[in-house]
Amino acid sequence: MPTKLTDLPTPALLLDLAILEHNITTMQSKADGLGVALRPHVKTHKCLEVGKKQRDAGAKGITVATLVEARDFAAGGFDDITWAFPLVIGRIGEVLGLARRITFRVLVESAAAAAALDQAARAAGLKVHTWLEVDCGYGRSGVDPQREESMALARRLATADGICFDGILTHAGHSYHARDAADRLRIAHQERDVMVGFARKLREAGIAVPQVSVGSTPSMAAHDDLTGVDEARPGNYAFYDYMQAAVGVCRPEDVAVSVLASVVSHQPGAPHVIVDAGALAMSKDQGPDGERRRGLGPLYAGLTGSEPDPSAYLASVSQEHGFVKSARAADLGGRFAVGERVRIMPNHSCLTAAMFDEYHVVRDGVVVDRWKVLRGR
Amino acid sequence: MPTKLTDLPTPALLLDLAILEHNITTMQSKADGLGVALRPHVKTHKCLEVGKKQRDAGAKGITVATLVEARDFAAGGFDDITWAFPLVIGRIGEVLGLARRITFRVLVESAAAAAALDQAARAAGLKVHTWLEVDCGYGRSGVDPQREESMALARRLATADGICFDGILTHAGHSYHARDAADRLRIAHQERDVMVGFARKLREAGIAVPQVSVGSTPSMAAHDDLTGVDEARPGNYAFYDYMQAAVGVCRPEDVAVSVLASVVSHQPGAPHVIVDAGALAMSKDQGPDGERRRGLGPLYAGLTGSEPDPSAYLASVSQEHGFVKSARAADLGGRFAVGERVRIMPNHSCLTAAMFDEYHVVRDGVVVDRWKVLRGR
Repeated sequence: MPTKLTDLPTPALLLDLAILEHNITTMQSKADGLGVALRPHVKTHKCLEVGKKQRDAGAKGITVATLVEARDFAAGGFDDITWAFPLVIGRIGEVLGLARRITFRVLVESAAAAAALDQAARAAGLKVHTWLEVDCGYGRSGVDPQREESMALARRLATADGICFDGILTHAGHSYHARDAADRLRIAHQERDVMVGFARKLREAGIAVPQVSVGSTPSMAAHDDLTGVDEARPGNYAFYDYMQAAVGVCRPEDVAVSVLASVVSHQPGAPHVIVDAGALAMSKDQGPDGERRRGLGPLYAGLTGSEPDPSAYLASVSQEHGFVKSARAADLGGRFAVGERVRIMPNHSCLTAAMFDEYHVVRDGVVVDRWKVLRGR
Repeated sequence: MPTKLTDLPTPALLLDLAILEHNITTMQSKADGLGVALRPHVKTHKCLEVGKKQRDAGAKGITVATLVEARDFAAGGFDDITWAFPLVIGRIGEVLGLARRITFRVLVESAAAAAALDQAARAAGLKVHTWLEVDCGYGRSGVDPQREESMALARRLATADGICFDGILTHAGHSYHARDAADRLRIAHQERDVMVGFARKLREAGIAVPQVSVGSTPSMAAHDDLTGVDEARPGNYAFYDYMQAAVGVCRPEDVAVSVLASVVSHQPGAPHVIVDAGALAMSKDQGPDGERRRGLGPLYAGLTGSEPDPSAYLASVSQEHGFVKSARAADLGGRFAVGERVRIMPNHSCLTAAMFDEYHVVRDGVVVDRWKVLRGR
């Protein structure tokens, strides 16, 4: 039976179904139009129901950030999973366990990891699907395609008995820090050109490169041509968040998750009211820098609807307390009386979702379902 | 059977038993010496085994931050619990459920919450234990003891049929931001003097004040005389963290929890190595300001032992990636090779612990047990 938002225990993580479905079909159309397969990163939602909607819309396989996510989604029926994290050598035994049950793909970007994986896979009589992780300019992990050792490592992966070489993979994480749409397009082109160029160089050297994988939500928003690329792995797009809205990757009305909270303290003369959404509801992600910063996230104008409040925001948090401030003095009157409810847009939806056990799924302003957040570690 | 730290899957949350036990007995002795009951805040550890150690050492009841913590600890055999958060009116039904089963104490600091609680409790035929929350100078929540309405609210709580008035309670959260030990002592005295003075004023007005409750870890470190106070509710002291060590509330060797991580990427020429401890292992708590800041936390010098590394630290995080940097160029050689392990001291142990499902309990450098983190929301 549908539950009204005013009847829900707070704090609660709300997921707007219409916005989610719009985001999923829009990104699938974008990938289809660019001629690439979509392999969504499920670290954003950690939710089987959301993953199934992505699959139903046309996604080919999924991407995970941890082995726990891999196991949870494998148990939920997902049989083609890429663990987009540099292989943790101490966990190769668990990788082999997954590789026996599903098509499980890992990332390697060092000779040490390649050697350990090859040896363990051969001993187990397996060939483990493996991507070579490439740094396309983000500067986090992945090999530098300009270095001689990078080609040597690709050759090793392509010829190792314990490895099934899937190709080359990158994440343009620096697209999150793009100054504007033009800067984002420049980074998106860099992501593509570095990868397509490296694939060509490897192929010219006689190394078969089955696939080229790229992807981040901001670079996918910018891409206009992915010739030479086979798949993309954005994740955040399912939900978006204030960060993405602030930098123009999405519109505020595209943000699918919010946190419902109650006003619990409103002392006379205080420059804030206290709500029951603190660091363990929102995370402590600081969101965008500079004048676009809205503390831990802006409030919405209403309990339903997509319009952000022009002046009220979650200014700071302690573990379970949130400090709401507003530039409008009138807000610190009746609207924020003790017992009233507010809704907060997260700075970073991936981290906020990971703070909760479940989504309250909202359609037309009422809660119609509850979906589990698989947040085990 | 004991497990070596080198055999543990990473990332893992380690809890050093000897340090934990030292912290628990030291704080209990401090409370005993000051003549106050100790009611530890379990939001730091969310762990039945740690709570039982605190109880065995002499604690009288516990403090929780959420109703989920209250239910989990009640189910685990704790029968005297204070929910130290301004009453969430929408959750009074759950409060009554707990009040039927255990001695469950709530905080009220508004007329709206007092009226709603009194009415619901009377309808249920209960008297709910209730503290009046007082602001002793932190400026978060709680009534201003100088205001006339505060005495009226105390009188209302002391006379309401649905309420059993427990007395007045405060949290000196501003002690976390004290500049030095002298400033901490000033805040500790303020915490005590405001509360003892307000209790006297209420009693002079004919309002019985059964108890006075104070408490934060930094103010407890400073207190030299708690005459007129009945109980204290510090929480962080069980674990401490880099923040508390940086400001001198504890020594670095008093920090009981750390995160064990593996080096997964170490590219030639990169100014960092990547470990498998990101925002969902450490939280994004920024720790101390200024020159004491060490990113998301300093590394330890070794896998065992309490000595912080003089130069290596977790500089930044993405969701699951941690960027380790070091001022010593030699560190970016063999010590941080792919597959090596590091240990990180958390900036804020309460938030870090809440990122994990379990503690790996360490005695003499080996894992001897696993304890659950009750991190449901």
